[in-house]
Amino acid sequence: MINGVKYFELVAEPVTREILPGVFIKGWGYNGSIPGPTIQVYPGDYVNIRVYNKLPEETSIHWHGLDIPVTMDGFPDVEPTPAIKPGYYFDYHFKIVNPPGTHMYHTHHFAVKQEMMGLGGGFIILDPKESKKDIQRDYFIMLQEFHVKGLKIGEVKPGVYEIDPMNHDFNFFTMNGRCFPYTTPLLVKECENVRIRLGNISEIAHPIHIHGHQFSITASDGNTIPTKNRMLKNTILVASGETWDIEFFTKNPGIWPFHCHIPHHMSNNMQKQTGGMFTTIIYK
Amino acid sequence: MINGVKYFELVAEPVTREILPGVFIKGWGYNGSIPGPTIQVYPGDYVNIRVYNKLPEETSIHWHGLDIPVTMDGFPDVEPTPAIKPGYYFDYHFKIVNPPGTHMYHTHHFAVKQEMMGLGGGFIILDPKESKKDIQRDYFIMLQEFHVKGLKIGEVKPGVYEIDPMNHDFNFFTMNGRCFPYTTPLLVKECENVRIRLGNISEIAHPIHIHGHQFSITASDGNTIPTKNRMLKNTILVASGETWDIEFFTKNPGIWPFHCHIPHHMSNNMQKQTGGMFTTIIYK
Amino acid sequence: MINGVKYFELVAEPVTREILPGVFIKGWGYNGSIPGPTIQVYPGDYVNIRVYNKLPEETSIHWHGLDIPVTMDGFPDVEPTPAIKPGYYFDYHFKIVNPPGTHMYHTHHFAVKQEMMGLGGGFIILDPKESKKDIQRDYFIMLQEFHVKGLKIGEVKPGVYEIDPMNHDFNFFTMNGRCFPYTTPLLVKECENVRIRLGNISEIAHPIHIHGHQFSITASDGNTIPTKNRMLKNTILVASGETWDIEFFTKNPGIWPFHCHIPHHMSNNMQKQTGGMFTTIIYK
Repeated sequence: MINGVKYFELVAEPVTREILPGVFIKGWGYNGSIPGPTIQVYPGDYVNIRVYNKLPEETSIHWHGLDIPVTMDGFPDVEPTPAIKPGYYFDYHFKIVNPPGTHMYHTHHFAVKQEMMGLGGGFIILDPKESKKDIQRDYFIMLQEFHVKGLKIGEVKPGVYEIDPMNHDFNFFTMNGRCFPYTTPLLVKECENVRIRLGNISEIAHPIHIHGHQFSITASDGNTIPTKNRMLKNTILVASGETWDIEFFTKNPGIWPFHCHIPHHMSNNMQKQTGGMFTTIIYK
Repeated sequence: MINGVKYFELVAEPVTREILPGVFIKGWGYNGSIPGPTIQVYPGDYVNIRVYNKLPEETSIHWHGLDIPVTMDGFPDVEPTPAIKPGYYFDYHFKIVNPPGTHMYHTHHFAVKQEMMGLGGGFIILDPKESKKDIQRDYFIMLQEFHVKGLKIGEVKPGVYEIDPMNHDFNFFTMNGRCFPYTTPLLVKECENVRIRLGNISEIAHPIHIHGHQFSITASDGNTIPTKNRMLKNTILVASGETWDIEFFTKNPGIWPFHCHIPHHMSNNMQKQTGGMFTTIIYK
Repeated sequence: MINGVKYFELVAEPVTREILPGVFIKGWGYNGSIPGPTIQVYPGDYVNIRVYNKLPEETSIHWHGLDIPVTMDGFPDVEPTPAIKPGYYFDYHFKIVNPPGTHMYHTHHFAVKQEMMGLGGGFIILDPKESKKDIQRDYFIMLQEFHVKGLKIGEVKPGVYEIDPMNHDFNFFTMNGRCFPYTTPLLVKECENVRIRLGNISEIAHPIHIHGHQFSITASDGNTIPTKNRMLKNTILVASGETWDIEFFTKNPGIWPFHCHIPHHMSNNMQKQTGGMFTTIIYK
């Protein structure tokens, strides 16, 4: 924070990501991670995000869902916003005019390739009026899928693997860059209000299902849904480009699956045991 | 019903299902059927469902959408709930604490294979306050798809065929285990309130379209939507893991298509004539 | 308009459509276009639509979303409505009983092939009470995808190409029959209310994303959503058979992308530069 401006740095770069113990994929991410770090701001903030390009080709960042000037929107093919050459950086600077909500950032240059290499992350506008009395747990999960090369169907073994970003026959499905059982569990206690923010910038729409609970759908693409209009569900379809916030109250102790319901996607490379886009909600 | 507990029996077993006249697929189902029988209970019921495993491998049943104890939730990979060995049974017993609504049951063991073999069915919590004055017709349709082996594209001929549960190039699409024109029509009379409950546990999201009418979306994943919030539509996307209840009033006599709108899915193995995930609403 | 009946003519015929400069696809359409012309009527209108079949096989038209008599519904496989032989015509005539909203028309004969050849268009019931004070811009966009034969992945070059309607590996994605950068931009001025009507009769559900703005979802399948129930989003999933109307207020000048968010679909045949189901909103 300098002179009322919040500074962030994102380095777009090749990232070797461990998606399962000993299984590494060679993708592209930000600050050493796929997905990149989750950016958190408040309404009214002035932000400056310096994006370094350490990729072997031009890139840009689109601040997906934010109502910002077109010069900062990050789609150089059609907008007056730069493509950042390898070795260079650009300062995206804008004021946060959207209300509190869940958004995303991702490359919008050579998107057919770069998005599928992993270049995305969460962008959350926090609510300054919200306190721990309202929401006791607040999670963000980015959904991604990859075609990892060099493994036969059913095969998962330690190694470092290339991604084929143009191949649509996906074999590994991640939550925050990891496959089950290597995903991070969502820890809760009894009698808490839990929010999970879901985001997707990949190809496939993922229907995310909770066990043992119903959840309320509280925000769509970063826009709060009025309480009287909220739908109660246990499965929410998250398409590419969408974010959905869901909330539930913890009144059923246990260890509960939370996962994409497509059978293929809760497996690592079609193995029989549970894997992929799957995590657990664990009551402590 | 014994001592206030409702007893059910489900036998998980290989099932040879006639999906079209003379065309049989060798899948897995319950009690000789794909999908299994629709279980009907009331809020507050105590139920005991004995599940026999006559499959050649371990299985389990997940009571999808029900807020029950984790010991009964049926996902042995992560929960304290058993995998049932071949030749054994397990008694799932729980109280129905959810309100009236449409849910499902399905295997949650080796799901990438077992769900795609056909192991699922409907689980409906009936409303004790609802009478024939409110709803005159009440249907449940489970949407499923299969990759049937041994037929060239465009070919449909009598025989008994294997399923390949790992192949995502689906060629047969069913409503309650049958393809059109072998699906069961939905019979109605003029001036009736008709409810159709749609459920999906397969891979693909199916947009189900009605002809000649609009419908109101009355429940999402077993949770009633308040009247003032109900959306009017003629096509509803049903993703894997979702149930949607729709209702319409019969004021346009005829024989009306009700089907998945994806062209490929209203065909049997890409044949030109109408088939697949398609049925008719017939006014008597 | 003769004796209070509005007359329209649609000619179903082979159409060579220029989807990119110099790139022509040999599909099927109406009146020389893919999609066909957008039909506009008012509630209460009596319409007569003469459909000539100049295709090499039988066809029909289904008036998707309209509550009309079954004899006019256009699905000859199951309804008492004719298949139109090559060289013949049929007069579809009916009264518009639906309220104002966005619907579609499309073939419903040999649909697995004919719909994927391009045979569809928009059918809009205008609101006689609506004026330029309410909505200053009103656009309709039909989303379609095609498998164009004879081009290697990444290759786009001038020529006249066949479509394979049975191949689900789509390589060209269109808005109103054109791929970006050949799509028609949506022109707006500052401080306008803009409506975009989206329709889809193809295979894939397309999540359409706007940059720089949020939109309100104002109608579902031709049914107006009451103001108090409208969801604010920036990405809307449009499945096959669905129409969605969205509205936004132009308060962020620039040239703004409006596109399917699936990376593969904003490319022409997997080329790196932006293409496909993509257009721009241009402030004048």
